[in-house]
Amino acid sequence: MTTLSALAVGTTLLLPGIALAANPAPDNLAVNAGATRHDPNDDASRTVKKAIDSGDAKNVILLIGDGMGDSEITVARNYQYGAAGHLPGIDTLPLTGQYTTYSLYREGANKGKPDYVPDSAATGSAWATGTKTYDNAVSVDIDQVPQPTILEIAKANGLKTGNVTTSEIQDATPAVLVSHVDARSCYGPDSPTCGNDALAAGGLGSISEQLIGTRADVTLGGGSASFTQTAKAGAYAGQTLFDQAAARGYQVVGDAAGLASVTSANQKAPLLGLFTESNFPTRYAATAATVGGADLPPVTCQPNPQRLATELSLGSLTTKALSLLDNKNGFFLQVEGASIDKRDHAADACGQIGETVDFDEAVQAALAFAEKDGDTLVLVTADHAHSSQIVDSTPPTSLSTALTTADGTVMKVSYGTAAAGGSQQHTGSQLRIAGYGPGAANIVGLTDQTDTFFTMANSLELERDTAALSDRARLSIDRSAKPGATVTLKADRFGGDRQLSGTVSPGDTPLGPVDVVDSSAAFSFTAPTEPGDYTVTVVGAQSGKQVTAKFTVRK
Amino acid sequence: MTTLSALAVGTTLLLPGIALAANPAPDNLAVNAGATRHDPNDDASRTVKKAIDSGDAKNVILLIGDGMGDSEITVARNYQYGAAGHLPGIDTLPLTGQYTTYSLYREGANKGKPDYVPDSAATGSAWATGTKTYDNAVSVDIDQVPQPTILEIAKANGLKTGNVTTSEIQDATPAVLVSHVDARSCYGPDSPTCGNDALAAGGLGSISEQLIGTRADVTLGGGSASFTQTAKAGAYAGQTLFDQAAARGYQVVGDAAGLASVTSANQKAPLLGLFTESNFPTRYAATAATVGGADLPPVTCQPNPQRLATELSLGSLTTKALSLLDNKNGFFLQVEGASIDKRDHAADACGQIGETVDFDEAVQAALAFAEKDGDTLVLVTADHAHSSQIVDSTPPTSLSTALTTADGTVMKVSYGTAAAGGSQQHTGSQLRIAGYGPGAANIVGLTDQTDTFFTMANSLELERDTAALSDRARLSIDRSAKPGATVTLKADRFGGDRQLSGTVSPGDTPLGPVDVVDSSAAFSFTAPTEPGDYTVTVVGAQSGKQVTAKFTVRK
Repeated sequence: MTTLSALAVGTTLLLPGIALAANPAPDNLAVNAGATRHDPNDDASRTVKKAIDSGDAKNVILLIGDGMGDSEITVARNYQYGAAGHLPGIDTLPLTGQYTTYSLYREGANKGKPDYVPDSAATGSAWATGTKTYDNAVSVDIDQVPQPTILEIAKANGLKTGNVTTSEIQDATPAVLVSHVDARSCYGPDSPTCGNDALAAGGLGSISEQLIGTRADVTLGGGSASFTQTAKAGAYAGQTLFDQAAARGYQVVGDAAGLASVTSANQKAPLLGLFTESNFPTRYAATAATVGGADLPPVTCQPNPQRLATELSLGSLTTKALSLLDNKNGFFLQVEGASIDKRDHAADACGQIGETVDFDEAVQAALAFAEKDGDTLVLVTADHAHSSQIVDSTPPTSLSTALTTADGTVMKVSYGTAAAGGSQQHTGSQLRIAGYGPGAANIVGLTDQTDTFFTMANSLELERDTAALSDRARLSIDRSAKPGATVTLKADRFGGDRQLSGTVSPGDTPLGPVDVVDSSAAFSFTAPTEPGDYTVTVVGAQSGKQVTAKFTVRK
Repeated sequence: MTTLSALAVGTTLLLPGIALAANPAPDNLAVNAGATRHDPNDDASRTVKKAIDSGDAKNVILLIGDGMGDSEITVARNYQYGAAGHLPGIDTLPLTGQYTTYSLYREGANKGKPDYVPDSAATGSAWATGTKTYDNAVSVDIDQVPQPTILEIAKANGLKTGNVTTSEIQDATPAVLVSHVDARSCYGPDSPTCGNDALAAGGLGSISEQLIGTRADVTLGGGSASFTQTAKAGAYAGQTLFDQAAARGYQVVGDAAGLASVTSANQKAPLLGLFTESNFPTRYAATAATVGGADLPPVTCQPNPQRLATELSLGSLTTKALSLLDNKNGFFLQVEGASIDKRDHAADACGQIGETVDFDEAVQAALAFAEKDGDTLVLVTADHAHSSQIVDSTPPTSLSTALTTADGTVMKVSYGTAAAGGSQQHTGSQLRIAGYGPGAANIVGLTDQTDTFFTMANSLELERDTAALSDRARLSIDRSAKPGATVTLKADRFGGDRQLSGTVSPGDTPLGPVDVVDSSAAFSFTAPTEPGDYTVTVVGAQSGKQVTAKFTVRK
C-alpha cells in the first residue's frame, strides 16, 4: 500500500501514480518545464506501476459527477484553481481511462441498437447492473426485466451499503441502485407514470417505495416530497412513506442536527436523511448565459445564500456516510454530484462550476478515507458528457457567459445545444474514468460503462448469483402451539433476499411480507384455532427460494 | 515485451493492457455483460502492469490527430465501427490519460497568463519544446526566443527524424518541429507576416526555409506552393526553395511513383516529399451542416473522388517513413492527421470522420511497427479539443448533420461555436493522450501538454543541452597551401549544430554557411594570394561553439 502522504508535497495532495510535481504552484508558466505537472526529470513508470493493486478491495466508493465530461472538469479547474492548477480530488487519482456511455433503443426497428446520447437512467443502470438499457429505464433491461444492482448484490454479500446525492434521492443516478422501474419519473405512489410498476398494479412499486425495501444502510440526499405521499397498496397502504420507513426501522432525519445525532446505521436501523423537498440548492448562485453573453463584462461566481449548511455539503455527507459504513465486512457507497448536469442543462456556468467544486470535495473525502484504509477502491467518473464548451470568441448564436478565473483572465463558456429557456442537451462523447486502489487498473484504456459494474463486483469478490445466497435458507419454529396463540417463526440464511413472505396451510393464510435484516427475518402470527398439523411455506421475494416448516396446533 | 499478437482475438487487435474482450463483435448488446469491452471475469491489473515498461525507448512515434478531442473520437467510432466497436488503432493503446492544452498570452497585462483556448501553434510548441507559449507562436517562447525542438534535439543526439502530415508541411503542427517563428503564417519567403523572422531581416527565415536547414531525414506532406517561392536573402537568394533543397542534397519527390522509388533517406540525402500544393484532399466528400440540418434525411459518407492515391494515405506515408527511419541509433517521427481539425472548423461531419479513420490507419501502422520492434514508444493524442458534439435532438440555432452509422441508427452531430460560413472554434477541454511502449506510463493520470516533451526526451535518453554536443568540435585542415589553391577544411563533432559558418583572417573572408551532415561539414575555399599565416574560425550556428585552425600560404 503506497500512502498518499508519502507523496505529498507541501499542501498539495499527490496520489500514488502522480510523480512529484515540478511546479505545484507555478511561478512562471512561460519558462521551459514551467507548466509541466510531472517532475520533468522523473520517470513515472514505477509510481504508476505501484498504483496498480491487483488485490481485492474490502470497500468500493463510486463517485459520479453527473454530466461531468472532460469539458466540465476543465471549466471548473480553470475557474477555481487556474488552468495550471488542479482539482485536489478529481485530478489526483493515479489511474485514468475513457469509457463509452451510449444507451440502447427500447422498441421498434432499432430495439437493442445503440442510441448515441444517453440519459442518466440508462447510464446509471449500466454501471449499476452491467446491462445496457434504454433512456428512462431504471435498472431494468430492454424488456423491462429487473437487473440486480451492485448495491443489492453487495448487500446480499454481507457488505454495508450507502447512497448519497445532492439531488432528489429518486433521481435516476441514486435510483438505479435501489429500484427497478420502466419510467424514471415514477418517484412515489402519486406519480402518474408508474404504470405496471405501481404496487397497486402488482409491480415492485415506485422508486421511493422500492428504496425503502432495498434498505441501504445509509441513504442521504434530497427528495423528501415523495416521502410525504401515501402508499396506495401493499402492507403499508394508507400510510405516508415517511411513516412506512419509520415503521420498518429507519432512522429518519431531515436536517444537520438530526444527522449529527446519528452515530450508527445498520440493517436494524438504517439511516434515511432527506434534507430538501427537491434537489439541494447549489453552492454558487446561478448565472444565465445569453446570446452574446460572453461579450458582457466577465462575472465572478457568488455564493448562493440558499446553500445548505456546510454539514450537509456533499463532502460532509460523504465523510459522514463513510464513518457509518466502515466495518469489517466492507461496504459499497455511491456518491453523486447531481447538479453539475442540472446547471449545465440550464446554461448556468457558475452553477455547474460550484457543483463540480462541491463534488471534488466529496472525492477528496473518499480519497482521504481510502488512503487511511488501504483497502478501498475509489472510482471517479461521470454518466454522460454535456453541452458546455470553452471557446475563444463569443459564439454568434449559442448562449455564452464570460467569467474571470483564478488566473485573473477571462474564460468564455458556450452552450449551443438548446436555445434560451430550453434545456441544454447531454452529449455523446466518451468520458474520463479515474481510479485508485485495488482493481483500479481495470479502468485504464478504453472500457464501456457496463465494465464498471464488473470492475466493482470483481474487486469486492461479490457472488453475483445472489439467489444462491439463499440456498441454505432455513426456518425455525416451535413444534406445537395452542389454538390462537402467538407463533414465532424465524427465517435465517436468506442472504439473497430483502423481503420474505409466507403462507400457512391448510387455510392459505398469508404471512408478511417482512424485511430481511442481516439474512434473517421473523414472522409472528396467530396459530389457527383448529387443532392439527400445519405447514408454513416461506418464499424469498428476490431469490424465489422456498422453505417449509411444520407445526402442530394442540389444545 | 508483451506481444500484440499474443493477445489478438480473431481479427481484433488487442494491445497489451487491454484484457481479452468479452465481446469483440457483440451479437447482443442488451444482455448482461453484452456491451463490456473487457472480459467481465478477468482482472486487467496484471495486463496493465505488464504494459508499463520503465526501460528506455530506441524510437518515438508521436501521432497527433489535430483537433481530435474525445468527442471527435467518439463521432468517428460511432460512424465507422458502431458505438460498441473500436477504432483499431486509437482505441487499442493500453495506457491512457488526460492532458491540459491551454496557451499563454503574448503581451499586455495578461502576458504569460493562461489563454484557455489554444491554437495549433502554441499546442504544438508545447510538446515540441516543453515550453508554453502564445497562439501563433512556432517554437518560440513568449519573448520570441527560439526553443529547441524534440526533432532538433533527437537529431543532435544522432537519431534519425521524420515529419509527416496531411496538411501543408508549413502548417503549425509540422512547423513546430523544424522552425521558430513569431507568426505561424510565415510559410515562405513571399509571406508578408515573417517580419523579423525573414532572412532578409536577419531572422532565421520562413518556416519552409528553416525546414530545409533543419534537415529531417524524412519530410512528407502537402504545401509545395511555398517551395516554388524564391529566397530573398542568404546563400540561396534568387533560387526557388525546391532548387535550394535539391542543391543541399535533398531527394525531392512529388507523387506516389517518386516516393516509391526512394529506398533510403539520411542526412546525406534527406527525403522531401510534397504531394499537393496545399493540404491533402480528404478521404470522404464534405458534408455541410446547416441550422436544422439534423432533421434532414441522414447521410452516409461518400468517398472523395479527389483523394490522393492509397500509396499517399497517411497510413501508407507512415509505413514508408518508418521503413526509411528504422536504424540502429533510433528515430523520432511525428505523424499528423491534420484535417480532422480543418473539417471540424468547416462543420463537415463526414470530412472529420474520414480524416479520423485515416489517422487511425497511421496509428495502426505505428503500432504494428512498435510491436515488431519492441523498443518504440508510441504516443497518440491531439493538440486541442474542437466543436463537434453528438446530440440527441436537432439543436435550434447550431449547425447540425444527421448520419446513418455502422449501427444502422442515426447520429446527430452539432456545431455551435460559429454561424454558417464561419469557422467553428477550437475548444478548451482537456484531452485524451494514449501510449504504448517504454515510458508510456508517464502519460497516465493528468499531465500537461508540455509534459509530453519530457516524456519523449526522457524515454529516448536525449541530451537536451544540445550545445554541449558540439563541445568536442574540431577542425582538420592542410597546414599549408599555395596562393589561390583550393583549401579543404573538415569540421567534425559538431553534433549540436545544423549549420556552420566561418571566417578566414586576416581579411575576414566569410566561409559558408554549410550544412552539418552527421556531425560533420566540409568547407572548400580559395587560399589567399598573399603568403603568410592565416586563422580559420568556424562557428556552430546553433551551439555558438567556435573552433579555430591555422594554415600557412606559401609560394
